[in-house]
Amino acid sequence: MEIVCVGNELLIGKTLNTNAHWLARRATSLGIMVKRITVVADDIDEIATVIREALKRKPRFIITTGGLGPTFDDKTLEGIAKALNLKWEVNEKALKMVREKYEAYVKAGRIDKVELTPARVKMAKLPESAEPLPNPVGTAPGIILKVEGTFLIALPGVPSEMEAIFDQSVEPLLKKEAGEAVFFEKSIYADGIMESTLAPFIDQTMHDNPYVYVKSHPKGEEKKPQLEIHFSTTAKDSETAKGRLEKAITQLSELVRKNNGKIKFQNENY
Amino acid sequence: MEIVCVGNELLIGKTLNTNAHWLARRATSLGIMVKRITVVADDIDEIATVIREALKRKPRFIITTGGLGPTFDDKTLEGIAKALNLKWEVNEKALKMVREKYEAYVKAGRIDKVELTPARVKMAKLPESAEPLPNPVGTAPGIILKVEGTFLIALPGVPSEMEAIFDQSVEPLLKKEAGEAVFFEKSIYADGIMESTLAPFIDQTMHDNPYVYVKSHPKGEEKKPQLEIHFSTTAKDSETAKGRLEKAITQLSELVRKNNGKIKFQNENY
Repeated sequence: MEIVCVGNELLIGKTLNTNAHWLARRATSLGIMVKRITVVADDIDEIATVIREALKRKPRFIITTGGLGPTFDDKTLEGIAKALNLKWEVNEKALKMVREKYEAYVKAGRIDKVELTPARVKMAKLPESAEPLPNPVGTAPGIILKVEGTFLIALPGVPSEMEAIFDQSVEPLLKKEAGEAVFFEKSIYADGIMESTLAPFIDQTMHDNPYVYVKSHPKGEEKKPQLEIHFSTTAKDSETAKGRLEKAITQLSELVRKNNGKIKFQNENY
Repeated sequence: MEIVCVGNELLIGKTLNTNAHWLARRATSLGIMVKRITVVADDIDEIATVIREALKRKPRFIITTGGLGPTFDDKTLEGIAKALNLKWEVNEKALKMVREKYEAYVKAGRIDKVELTPARVKMAKLPESAEPLPNPVGTAPGIILKVEGTFLIALPGVPSEMEAIFDQSVEPLLKKEAGEAVFFEKSIYADGIMESTLAPFIDQTMHDNPYVYVKSHPKGEEKKPQLEIHFSTTAKDSETAKGRLEKAITQLSELVRKNNGKIKFQNENY
């Protein structure tokens, strides 16, 4: 999978990219590997270029976030249409979704009457042949589009809307695709050993446990260093995954202890 | 500028990418525009591919984060060397920096003696012709390398180390490059108006204020929506920048009030 986040607010450092983090976490936990995350400006040509580049790498999924709203600088769908040489046009199903949202806003007393202004109709303009995905908590629908072997999915940038569409329409598809694969992870913490001393032990553990990925992360302060050692694996069932992690953790813990390091267990994630 | 973040922990959603956010913020405040952020795995070929792609777009700066440490999966410098067809070899200046760090650790009683193990020497292996950048708070040096018109800079992934090297060695270079440009921004908040109603007013304001970028961000809950309207500009001096923002804010505020919206000022960033 690749994730493409569209938004100047990410490139000027105004907004922290929690959407990419959330999506990466969810995809990984479903057993789907995220290979790349790209952040790009609200610019039709830039978006089109990034989408074309991602499609060339033939991932099973590309999920974009941001740029689906009513304003001038919401350009993701126009960019996708450009990347694929598709028309960017009003989709009747999407327009019905948008209209029903404004009807609900009238009922709730938020607006006086349903006016489908150009800015509102814009939210129903999709690349030709895209399917709209209902937005349970906002106005702009997401979209899904099959491009050869790739599912291209566009979600809004507002986190609650992105998450709601993902839960309702995207997760079921990812689950089907991933089959029974599950992702497992566990961290242990080492005191009294430097990362450079630990490095060859991690290499040995990864060599002896080919399905387990081990990575050290320096934590704590310079004067009182602590290393988080993170173990992860993706397997067909949780029994296999747990067994693999335990074996790797036992091996590395022994190597650390033999070299005067101390191991602490905490933050168990299974 | 482009930012390239290396690390599986970002792609599995374990770690939130605060480094990209911090760097984007700092570069922007110095008047330098970040055009793209890419997150890539700890994989030599992937890193080399991303660096080559970024160089083709000819940015003035590429800053990478992560992958400079002593472990097997710290692969950024080997990936950069591969991208540029350069040797990846021990740099004497970098080795001196690393050795001095371990001498200081001996003095501080953290280790018994200085042993330059392969894992430690690895931190001094740089692409041929790269210059090491001293790390004031950790062990692995950063690097800088000029590739035609691009400064390619590699910083560690540990935030305190990344920030310290940036402050000491990178910011002065960026400042020189940016000249006197300053980035200014201000947000106002609108109640009682929908984003789709606001959209054409933003378009008009941007049209009438060509140097000001205006973007709306839905905030608050669905039942009690609020819009943040963010104005930003980059100018040669703060007088000009402030003047531009005030003019755009005044125009848009009037349009909002005429349409029964309320404007609140808060979070002034200048």
